[in-house]
This record gives sequence, C-alpha cells and structure tokens, in this order.
Amino acid sequence: MFRPEIKVIDCTIRDGGLINAWRFDDALVRSSYQACCEAGVDYFEIGYKASRDMFDPKQFGKWRFCGEDDVKKIIDGIEPVSKLSCMVDIGRVRENDIAEAGSSPFSMYRVACYIKDMDKAIALSNLIMDKGYEVSLNIMAVSTNLEKDIDESLESISRTDIPLVYLVDSYGSMYCEDITFLAKKYIAALPGKTIGIHSHNNRQLAFGNTIQAIIDGVNYLDASIYGIGRGAGNCSLELLIGFLKNPKFNIRPILKVIEEYYVSLREQIEWGYIIPYMITGMLNEHPRTAIALRSGPDKDKYLKFFDTLTQPEVDNQSE
Amino acid sequence: MFRPEIKVIDCTIRDGGLINAWRFDDALVRSSYQACCEAGVDYFEIGYKASRDMFDPKQFGKWRFCGEDDVKKIIDGIEPVSKLSCMVDIGRVRENDIAEAGSSPFSMYRVACYIKDMDKAIALSNLIMDKGYEVSLNIMAVSTNLEKDIDESLESISRTDIPLVYLVDSYGSMYCEDITFLAKKYIAALPGKTIGIHSHNNRQLAFGNTIQAIIDGVNYLDASIYGIGRGAGNCSLELLIGFLKNPKFNIRPILKVIEEYYVSLREQIEWGYIIPYMITGMLNEHPRTAIALRSGPDKDKYLKFFDTLTQPEVDNQSE
Repeated sequence: MFRPEIKVIDCTIRDGGLINAWRFDDALVRSSYQACCEAGVDYFEIGYKASRDMFDPKQFGKWRFCGEDDVKKIIDGIEPVSKLSCMVDIGRVRENDIAEAGSSPFSMYRVACYIKDMDKAIALSNLIMDKGYEVSLNIMAVSTNLEKDIDESLESISRTDIPLVYLVDSYGSMYCEDITFLAKKYIAALPGKTIGIHSHNNRQLAFGNTIQAIIDGVNYLDASIYGIGRGAGNCSLELLIGFLKNPKFNIRPILKVIEEYYVSLREQIEWGYIIPYMITGMLNEHPRTAIALRSGPDKDKYLKFFDTLTQPEVDNQSE
Repeated sequence: MFRPEIKVIDCTIRDGGLINAWRFDDALVRSSYQACCEAGVDYFEIGYKASRDMFDPKQFGKWRFCGEDDVKKIIDGIEPVSKLSCMVDIGRVRENDIAEAGSSPFSMYRVACYIKDMDKAIALSNLIMDKGYEVSLNIMAVSTNLEKDIDESLESISRTDIPLVYLVDSYGSMYCEDITFLAKKYIAALPGKTIGIHSHNNRQLAFGNTIQAIIDGVNYLDASIYGIGRGAGNCSLELLIGFLKNPKFNIRPILKVIEEYYVSLREQIEWGYIIPYMITGMLNEHPRTAIALRSGPDKDKYLKFFDTLTQPEVDNQSE
C-alpha cells in the first residue's frame, strides 16, 4: 500500500503513558524517538501538554506535561526526521502553557475532545493554530454518538481552518464496515481536510481497521511501538511500517527498539489482547471497568466480569 | 453479522496440538468440547487422523490419531451440539484408518493439501465421501501459488462432489484485499459449493480477515479458543462468537473455559502475536524458522532474525 499522502504518527509515549502515568525512562523515550526517525515515521507524539497546577508533578512523569526543555534534552543530537507532536485535552491546559511555535520543538498539537465539547475544541484549535502550529482535532468515542450529533459536529468543523480531523475508535469496538461508514462520512463532510485514524486493539482489529481506513481514503495513521497503549493498546507500528510500501519507511529500527526496550517493558506493565478489554470493546464501553478488574484479585474472572457488565441484576463489584 | 448459513468450526485441539504434539489433558479436551457445545459451535475438530504405523504413538498425544474409542470417552455424557471433525494430511493416513461413518463419532473429515497434491486430495476426498462423511478440502498456503495453478485446481474441484472448500491463509500473510480477491475467485469457480476460511494471526489480522471473508460470502469459519494454534495462532473463537449475531451462539461458555484452562495453558506453551511470527507472516513464509528461533537462546533477537531472512549474505544461524 503506497500513497504519497500517507503519514504515520507514533503515539507510543503519549498513549502508552496512560498505563504508567508517563513514567518512562529517558533512555527508552530517546531510543524510541531515534527509532521512529530512522524508520521514517512522520510524527512522534511524546505526551500530553497539561497544566502543572492541575496535575501534581509528583504523581506523573514528565510526559504528562511535555515541557519544552524536557523535550529538547530527549531529542538533542538526533536527526529530527520525525516531527514532534503533543496532545491536549479540553479543560486540562491553559493558553499560557502553550508556547509560540517559533520557540517550541513541537510542530503539531492534537486536540482530543468528545462531541459534547466540540465548540470548546474548535476554539482551542483556533488558539493553537494562531500560535503557529499544525493542529489536528481528534473526536473521541464516536462509536457512542448519535449520527445527528456526529453530523452536526462535522458541519461545525467544516467551517473552520482546522486541516486534520481524526476518526477515533476509543473503545476498540468498531469493525471494518464501521470504519468505512464513518470514514466516508468524515471525508464527505470535510472537503479539503485530511482525515486520520486512531484505533484500539480490544478485538484485535486495530491494524485491520487501519488498513480499511487507508482503503477508504484516510491518510494520517496512528500507531505505537509493539502496540503499547492503555488497555488493549493500539495499532502496532511494526505491523503498519511492515505493510506500507512507501519507500521512506524502514522496519529495522522498530524491531531493534522492541527487542531492546519493549519486550522487558511488557513484563513490567500490561497492555494488549486481554479478555476483559475484549469484553469492553465488544460492548462498546470505556475500558475503565476492565482496568479496575485487572488491578485486583479477580483479574482473570472473565465470566463474572462479563455477567457484571451484561446482567444488571448482578452487583458490579469491580467498579 | 447474522446469516443463517454461517457455521463455525472450532479447531482448538487440532491446530493447538501442533504446538504440543497433541498432548492435552483429557479434562481440557472434554471441557473445551462441552464449552463449544454450549456455545452453539457447529463443529469441533478434535485432531488429525493419522496412521499409527507412520507416527510413533509414544511421541504424540492421542489427538494425532483420533481413535474412535478415545473420542467416545471424551464426549460421553455431553449433549452433542457440535458435530465432530478431524483432519487428514495427504500421505499420512491409509484407507483402513478411516472407519465407515455409521460406526464413527465423526461427522466430517477435512482433507488438507497443497495445490501440488490436488489430484491426490480429490481422490482421498472421494474415498472419504464414499464412507459416508461430510468432506471439506482445505487448500493450504495458497498465498504462495501462481494464479494459473490456483485456477486449475479450482477447476478440478468444481468437477467433483466435494461440497466445501477452504481458503487457508497458512502463513498469516494476507490482508483484507487478498481475502476478497481469493474469496471471489473461489466462489466464482465453485458454483454450488460452500467456501470456508482458515486464517492465522501473524499480523493480527486473523479475525479481521475472517470478518472480510464473511462480507465476501464465505460461510464456514474456523476459530480456536483464545486463538490457540501453531505460531501466531488462529482467529479467536471468543472474538468470532462475540461478533456473530446468530441467536444460537453464546460467548459465556467460551469465556469460562478460557479462564479455567487456557490462561494457565498459555503460560506453559506459547502462541500468539510474537514478533518472529509477525516477520514470517509479513514475508509470506512458513513459520518454521520462527518456531526454531523461539526454542533457542536468540528467541528475542528480532532484528537479527529479520536480517537473516531478508539479507541472503547473513548466515542463517537459527535454521
């Protein structure tokens, strides 16, 4: 699959940090960035930009905040093939947390929002574009919205200058026909804009759905090294790079950083195809109940967990 | 996805046995059969039928041979919702190993063959049909054949009474467009016959490819509990049962048998998404090199393994 417009965004540290509160060793972050640069990955999303007065810096690693100085230390001396990106959530960042683009190592901000916050998300996107950055608007949990609300949001976005809009399968609940339905809807509603895909692997469909999105005309593709990400994780970067035919991509640096860092990391923190996450994906639900289950003594009591979510008369002891 | 014609074949013991030489505890086999019956699975493939004088019974578990008496002991007392199936390989079974259907617990034989052995496979299929069984012909490794040879084989099969023909992605190398291409070819070349799909999960596409096959008109679907199978394994039965809407299917017994048997089994024997199997899948190769790698000290030396398979000047020390 080769299409020159295709761009790959690695979100290893940003999405993976949702598992370990962004407490990654500098060596892992630096090696991951270097691997992505050498692999020809277009963007490297290193974390969330959040206000330090809203989150206790003692409880979170540095990639919860993405301080410019911290970023510069990590990338120092590496040929910057991959542009840098960070994500912001509505209401968790203030205007003065976001530097002017000219003094920042970041090229792109991605604004994550739910449909209910669309007007706030557009306002924040405009503010960030005015500071000189590329901006993407990532509409989360779209599988839980009524179509009329999706249509209304897309119509609002179509009247903005936001160049990039993401289709996000937050709960890992979609399959290929859902992707096609929504990708066609986004493309039709947003003429002149680029569409991206961010998938989750609850049902082992993150990579397959990303392929389907490519077929449907989606050009920005999220992935993470070894599929790391909260819960079931994301589309695996090594699978995506191994599939795309664009000559600039090279899988070797990704295989190297997996064997050097991510195999052992996977033994310390958990992500991937695990039955409780499959169940929340199948039920089109947030994985929070599965995350809670996995931290307790009933972590492998799958049937009871399924019954708790599907039979209201059963007490939900995992919440 | 609901289509009355859809049938699910569980191949947990047959394909999983390729990992452990079919040495499963009777309790696991019986519980797996019971779970499939309770889940509404249509067929339960319990192993291979092979001649005892070709394989040393001391080196293999009983499901390498599928003796009728062994089968009867396992299923005794369980309501037989799932019909029983076994697989045969060309040249590894003799006519007198196959009982008349009237005296056997088996309903179906599946004949696995490569394209080069198609005429032998058709002859064996005819012999087994004459004994009174349902028969499926499973064409393996079709991703490695020239199209003219595939077409010629399908033409030969079209002139037989074999009712069921499988599209098999032996190396886990295909993606959705490959599935569509071949499914349409099989359906067009084999009017009046039913098409099945057997996928492997090397690139995390086993379930996605099975969904694509359903969309393309394929009606017999292979899966295994918790995805067990040689190398990267198969389409996970729990994913498939959770996806299909046919009212007869029930995911609860499958979740129960996973938590009771397969979580601990996975700690004893290895299958699933493991990078060397991803690499052989990406390269459209048999997993034997990856299987050898995983049994040695370099099991996590992914980059070296990749280079060995892709750079002929590097010595292949893992073979």
